[in-house]
Amino acid sequence: MRTAFYISDGTAITSEVFGHATLSLFPVEFNHKTIPFVETEEKANEVKALINATAQREGEKPLVFFTFVNHNLSEIIRSSSAITYDFLTTFSDKIEQELKVAPVPKIHRTHSMHEKSYDFRIDAVNYALTNDDGANINNYAEADIILVGVSRSGKTPTSLYLALQYGIKAANYPITEEDLETGKLPACLVAYKQKLFGLTIDPVRLADIRQRRMANSKYASLKQCRIEVREVEMLYKKHKISYLNSTNHSVEEISAKIISDTNLERRKY
Amino acid sequence: MRTAFYISDGTAITSEVFGHATLSLFPVEFNHKTIPFVETEEKANEVKALINATAQREGEKPLVFFTFVNHNLSEIIRSSSAITYDFLTTFSDKIEQELKVAPVPKIHRTHSMHEKSYDFRIDAVNYALTNDDGANINNYAEADIILVGVSRSGKTPTSLYLALQYGIKAANYPITEEDLETGKLPACLVAYKQKLFGLTIDPVRLADIRQRRMANSKYASLKQCRIEVREVEMLYKKHKISYLNSTNHSVEEISAKIISDTNLERRKY
Repeated sequence: MRTAFYISDGTAITSEVFGHATLSLFPVEFNHKTIPFVETEEKANEVKALINATAQREGEKPLVFFTFVNHNLSEIIRSSSAITYDFLTTFSDKIEQELKVAPVPKIHRTHSMHEKSYDFRIDAVNYALTNDDGANINNYAEADIILVGVSRSGKTPTSLYLALQYGIKAANYPITEEDLETGKLPACLVAYKQKLFGLTIDPVRLADIRQRRMANSKYASLKQCRIEVREVEMLYKKHKISYLNSTNHSVEEISAKIISDTNLERRKY
Repeated sequence: MRTAFYISDGTAITSEVFGHATLSLFPVEFNHKTIPFVETEEKANEVKALINATAQREGEKPLVFFTFVNHNLSEIIRSSSAITYDFLTTFSDKIEQELKVAPVPKIHRTHSMHEKSYDFRIDAVNYALTNDDGANINNYAEADIILVGVSRSGKTPTSLYLALQYGIKAANYPITEEDLETGKLPACLVAYKQKLFGLTIDPVRLADIRQRRMANSKYASLKQCRIEVREVEMLYKKHKISYLNSTNHSVEEISAKIISDTNLERRKY
């Protein structure tokens, strides 16, 4: 299997996203190798030696996706026995022409601490943790969004992702069988109806997830899952709560859809 | 302020990372606007109208970073009154030449559910939550890593990021004043010494963070923070525990450094 390297003098997250997005277009399997924080010529030469040894061993040149702020380091990587793709330079040249402003390279700009946004993110993570799973119903005035749904429908990972990635204060609250029987919204949520966003899930997938947690229980039975999912969707419709089905979507997709549907403000950049 | 758009028929996360990384090279402020899930020609034409209205209002063409799998949709965006940057096509043409394999575009490939990795990530998030802040000391055999550090040194957000982003099971355990007085590792950690990774932090920053949590307490005093930080660093050195200083680093940087230093396996791709 051919090797793809993702290399940077920073976290290499940009190189990874760039390389994975591009390679995912091709029906070819790769051995993925990420090397962050290549900050010195010595380290760059070590990486070059590793790339060259890989080329020799595999009999074909590795694909190397890199982003370097330091030009000398990128030249070392570029001189290795590899096919190299340098997306920053490719596009920064075009953008420079358009903006008529020269780039001012600064290391660790992309995934480092942005003063304006960083405290937001940490505060949001703390908020999501203390307001997970209905643990604290007195803080909803502060919430940007309150995710609701039956147990194990994806509320917790989504809340944490919204907080960590976008600095959004996301609480989440479980809709229980008792709530569903009354057909009413839980009392603590009524005043915050405009902040609610529902998650639903395919009952077969839900039963599968619940089985892993509590095997052979009523809670995990397909019958119970079907009832809860049907009733929670009725509840969303009755109370005009926006919702989406998490079954075939990643946390990234669910979060992007929620932000897009609710016009929540991203506080990351 | 000129507007930069990030547009995609998927989450637009790739467009955002690509656009932000490139624009961050220039000392210019932009108004950032992300539009995910542009999946129909109707929606693409709406977005085009929005771009054109923005160009008219601002008196200069917006910069548009886009990634589309559907070629018809990208042509609609390309025909708007904007400077467009299409990084997927730019590089996929080059990679096609190298691989001698045609791309097979498939929507939602980049940030959607990878069957192999998705359950790993959700399991890891659940693990991080139930093993946060020393809440559960009986599960450390299962941990990929156990972060240690004094209160508020960045353990929790880092554990969650490692879990959500990379599917790494990260527990975390707080080192208390009592632990520091004995100079010994907490008993529950001794058997897992090779899984420990320490965080430290500048005492002034630590005091600032603790003040927001418990103002004017001994816990938040600069004197107390200085003592705890000095002693925890001594503890790391004494027990040969790798550690890093989180003060000026984002969660992304801390996580990338930890993975790089410990050779942990990323389970995302």
